[in-house]
Amino acid sequence: VKLREIGEFGLIARIKKSWPPSSPQVFQGMGDDAAVSSLLPGNDLVSTVDLLIEGIHFDLSWIAPRQLGRKSLAVNLSDLAAMGAVPRWALISLAVPSGLGVEFVDEFFAGFKEMAEAHGVLLIGGDTSSSPDRLYLSVTLLGEGKKEFLLYRHGAKPGDHLYVTGTLGDSLLGLHLARNLKGRAPSLPEKFLLDRHFDPTPRLREGKILAERRLAKAMIDVSDGLLSDLGHICGESGVGAVVWAERIPQSEAFRSLVPGAAAEGWKYALKGGEDYELLFSASAESASELETVASEWPCGLTWIGRIEPPSHGLVVQGENGPVDPSGLKGYDHFT
Amino acid sequence: VKLREIGEFGLIARIKKSWPPSSPQVFQGMGDDAAVSSLLPGNDLVSTVDLLIEGIHFDLSWIAPRQLGRKSLAVNLSDLAAMGAVPRWALISLAVPSGLGVEFVDEFFAGFKEMAEAHGVLLIGGDTSSSPDRLYLSVTLLGEGKKEFLLYRHGAKPGDHLYVTGTLGDSLLGLHLARNLKGRAPSLPEKFLLDRHFDPTPRLREGKILAERRLAKAMIDVSDGLLSDLGHICGESGVGAVVWAERIPQSEAFRSLVPGAAAEGWKYALKGGEDYELLFSASAESASELETVASEWPCGLTWIGRIEPPSHGLVVQGENGPVDPSGLKGYDHFT
Repeated sequence: VKLREIGEFGLIARIKKSWPPSSPQVFQGMGDDAAVSSLLPGNDLVSTVDLLIEGIHFDLSWIAPRQLGRKSLAVNLSDLAAMGAVPRWALISLAVPSGLGVEFVDEFFAGFKEMAEAHGVLLIGGDTSSSPDRLYLSVTLLGEGKKEFLLYRHGAKPGDHLYVTGTLGDSLLGLHLARNLKGRAPSLPEKFLLDRHFDPTPRLREGKILAERRLAKAMIDVSDGLLSDLGHICGESGVGAVVWAERIPQSEAFRSLVPGAAAEGWKYALKGGEDYELLFSASAESASELETVASEWPCGLTWIGRIEPPSHGLVVQGENGPVDPSGLKGYDHFT
Repeated sequence: VKLREIGEFGLIARIKKSWPPSSPQVFQGMGDDAAVSSLLPGNDLVSTVDLLIEGIHFDLSWIAPRQLGRKSLAVNLSDLAAMGAVPRWALISLAVPSGLGVEFVDEFFAGFKEMAEAHGVLLIGGDTSSSPDRLYLSVTLLGEGKKEFLLYRHGAKPGDHLYVTGTLGDSLLGLHLARNLKGRAPSLPEKFLLDRHFDPTPRLREGKILAERRLAKAMIDVSDGLLSDLGHICGESGVGAVVWAERIPQSEAFRSLVPGAAAEGWKYALKGGEDYELLFSASAESASELETVASEWPCGLTWIGRIEPPSHGLVVQGENGPVDPSGLKGYDHFT
């Protein structure tokens, strides 16, 4: 069955049926001109939107529809994680080629719902259309938190330690792998890296703890690449930073697959995007509490550098002195 | 200057520069992982999203970039008008062909800002990307109101009067005109109809009054066509309805251009979409207060029908009895 056979209202009915029309904080979900929901008393609204376009952000020959559903919400969840906010509601804009099967849409929303349920998110609205040539997705995610507890890109101070959750570079390597597998079944380490790219895990629990316990001062998620995203913290905080290249955390799978990874692997991590790890600064005094808290995080936490006065700029320190990071900028969609 | 020359961050900087990073209700605007804003105490969140795709929803050979900027927000404002909500903040997903000039983007956002400022809306977030082939726009609009005052598609009761603001059919006729002008300068009535399609006016003031004074019981905006949108009210309210065809309001410009409009023009109005007028039911007891209130509305208000028991279905009553509305359904993107 193709989408053109069930039509726009058929598609909407298919999407609506698995979501409750109301819930404790949702007075009106899908099915009206707008959704109506309530923040918890005293909370502020946290909102973000992410755009995913077939052929730019994903390729349907590599990503399964269910993974795409999961990832389209995960990238937004990662943004709220980086604020230390609690995600609540999603709205989706979906433009689908009308020749696509309804199974695709069903699988997509099965994945979307898996990710949503894992984090207490409800789909409360959206808009759909046919698309002449490619799949377009825009997901708006709404959440809440108290503005004085939330974490921003500004707020880092010279002397702060710089931390990152999980490991970096896996996602970029996973993407390279996908492009070169050519039908071959992936090995276990390869499977790990593919999952890191196609099915990333947003660090919501970690972000919320960092915000609630006031352990971080400035935070961002690593979506454009460490160098680019650290640049945003530096820019918004008016500071410089040093990153110790050899401390950048790499996964075992990554090390087992990149020849000379110990020396060169950090280049992937500096440049690679879509890791969806949290990068943040914390005062030196918080270090021991932070270590205690993070010791329970399955993803781990690594101290990778320090915030410096603005005059220092952003320096990547290798074993033999500063490394020239030019040519390692993050991804720019237009250039 | 093309977008590929200024890049993604250049584009974002260009968009950001004309919007304040914070304001009384906005703690963090664009430039972080998410925006942070505050509803007024006791208010609920009202959220909606609309998708506009080049070649499906608009054609750049007919709509000016500034009009597109205005309309991309206006269609969302109309959704909040239909709830009786107060619009506050917008987020935009924008995918632009990289060969497009920056002047296009500047004009688009000039129009977007005009419409935003006219209704007290701030742009607080977004995502941008290049697009391989066509312009793709998704605007999320967030607003507020008290859920017990807001107006939904449900709530209409048999015996209610059915009203519509403004005039219907203008937008569809305007679109037909645009397709057939072929470079000829439009006459004044033609210009009026073109504006009704390319630069619609959301009925926010009217919607808010209807909600605050509890004058309406169920409301929707006419975006898919009167028949289709009244169908939503009937479906969600569990009622039927009769529409008196000859009462459907037509503009002077419409009547001057459609031969036999008095008899046949209502077909445009029943089928035509994108009128962005408000369609609502009100109890018979509210009629006189409603007439007094609406007498100050420049767009006017017309009593066009009545809510009936569900067994009556949706009937369009012509001069010589019921009219068969089949073949007059609203627009479906997939069929």
